[in-house]
Amino acid sequence: MKTQVVAGIDIGGTNTEIALVDREGKVLFSSKLSTKAHSTPESWVEATITILKDGLRSTGANLVATGIGAPSANYFSGCIEFAPNMPWAGKIPLAEMVEKETFRPCKITNDANAAALGEQLFGSAKWLKDFVVVTLGTGLGSGFIVNDQVMYGHDGFAGELGHVIVEHNGRLCGCTRHGCLETYVSATGIVTTAKDFLSFMGDLSILNEIPLDKLESRHIAEAAEKGDKVAINILGATAEKLAFALANMVAITSPSHIFLYGGLAKAGKFILDPTRKYFESYLLRNYAGKVKIELSGLPDHAAVLGAAALAWKELS
Amino acid sequence: MKTQVVAGIDIGGTNTEIALVDREGKVLFSSKLSTKAHSTPESWVEATITILKDGLRSTGANLVATGIGAPSANYFSGCIEFAPNMPWAGKIPLAEMVEKETFRPCKITNDANAAALGEQLFGSAKWLKDFVVVTLGTGLGSGFIVNDQVMYGHDGFAGELGHVIVEHNGRLCGCTRHGCLETYVSATGIVTTAKDFLSFMGDLSILNEIPLDKLESRHIAEAAEKGDKVAINILGATAEKLAFALANMVAITSPSHIFLYGGLAKAGKFILDPTRKYFESYLLRNYAGKVKIELSGLPDHAAVLGAAALAWKELS
Repeated sequence: MKTQVVAGIDIGGTNTEIALVDREGKVLFSSKLSTKAHSTPESWVEATITILKDGLRSTGANLVATGIGAPSANYFSGCIEFAPNMPWAGKIPLAEMVEKETFRPCKITNDANAAALGEQLFGSAKWLKDFVVVTLGTGLGSGFIVNDQVMYGHDGFAGELGHVIVEHNGRLCGCTRHGCLETYVSATGIVTTAKDFLSFMGDLSILNEIPLDKLESRHIAEAAEKGDKVAINILGATAEKLAFALANMVAITSPSHIFLYGGLAKAGKFILDPTRKYFESYLLRNYAGKVKIELSGLPDHAAVLGAAALAWKELS
Repeated sequence: MKTQVVAGIDIGGTNTEIALVDREGKVLFSSKLSTKAHSTPESWVEATITILKDGLRSTGANLVATGIGAPSANYFSGCIEFAPNMPWAGKIPLAEMVEKETFRPCKITNDANAAALGEQLFGSAKWLKDFVVVTLGTGLGSGFIVNDQVMYGHDGFAGELGHVIVEHNGRLCGCTRHGCLETYVSATGIVTTAKDFLSFMGDLSILNEIPLDKLESRHIAEAAEKGDKVAINILGATAEKLAFALANMVAITSPSHIFLYGGLAKAGKFILDPTRKYFESYLLRNYAGKVKIELSGLPDHAAVLGAAALAWKELS
């Protein structure tokens, strides 16, 4: 009998990753294409289907469904809706377009929800029914599993933890408001925080050697790893904001676990340890010691696994 | 055939209300007993069962299940757990105790979750699958319906919106932390706000005629009703804090509706109008105009209806 696989597709503004994934999360085939190179979704679908056919031919596997993770993707409508960083404007009925070409069901969701499903099927959240995945990248996303189901909210747009306001009159956010969590806790936010710190204690840090306009979040993580106290404090200040928002979130959804996923989470203990410490200090006593904060158990670049998990979950 | 009813029981620190409620939410029988008068849960159960038997005899109805709403009640364990304002200490397995006497299933949940279920079965949330009920009483509680189910969280204690921190270093809360929403938005919180306002503009308000130690939240609502500008501003300041917390909550759970329930909600438009106005101004644009804030559609003292709704929902 042929191996059953799903296609897991992760669409970013720059690249699309495509993988064929079996029920155990094993990637049998993977490939990439440039999202940007396709000025219309029709042309993107055509290129994607060509790659999928190649993959199915080379693996000899049988496609049963497709899952897609993408920014601003709406599970209910099956559309990518007005994504700010995508080459295609408006509302794109991508799930339907892919179904027409594959003759198999296709589901779509935003990348953070996909990450949560990936964590549950293939990562550290197996058997967990109430948990949250926080994706720390250029921005901050979140996917909530509540009572063993993705919490989509009434409109498909639940889980915008990055846009919880943590500082009245705080930093200006891309959303036009002030003080959103992701203006502090994200690759972009941490660089802003670093510039603040370096403006008055730059001479104490090896980060001072990097021109400010070249400073990236990975430099801060690397400096912390080398014992740079300023870098460690920058990560600590970032962790404090994250912990505050997480403690407030727990008072609403009461998850058993919070998983940190993505680039910034790779700062490892320098972000994890202070987040745990501040989190416990901010937490309502009812929850003390009950909620675990962990790094994601998914491998790097596991967005395709999340998309694949969506497809598997829908079939079961 | 006998009418099928459930028993809806609302336990407060002072009184217990007991009702027999049919599938349409009609109360066929109701009665009260003093919670405080019973120093042990066993004695409370005995008195409650006596009342239920009276009710079933007088109505000729058939009991199919019991639902109980109580502070610190845990749906998963069936226990009231360490309730601060109850006469019984520790963990009380009340659901099991009632089941033993009635030979019918009994479920227990906290009063805010019961209110949410009541709103869905008998109030204004019929057909809604993602909404929130905020109970405004001595404190502030909340019950979340997510994907047509109560969001209990992993431990049964989700929905502590009253303990979301809205002001860093804000007012001291009974939970020992500072700046919790319920220190501003609750009967107690609004009286504190009123005292702040009256300390510098008391001469402009009819509230000044009331000795400060006798001031209650209903006085503020009554003064606003008479056109008192200071009272209207006190309610506006309260609404601002509530709206801020609601906007942040929407970014997590994305409900279609938020219902305000309880004493403070009776200040009607003086709380509702400014809450809506501030809420829209605080809201992430994705949600603009999508989330409705309404007063609860349940009648006064409808806590027994919520408890009855829990019983009916469990059976179906």
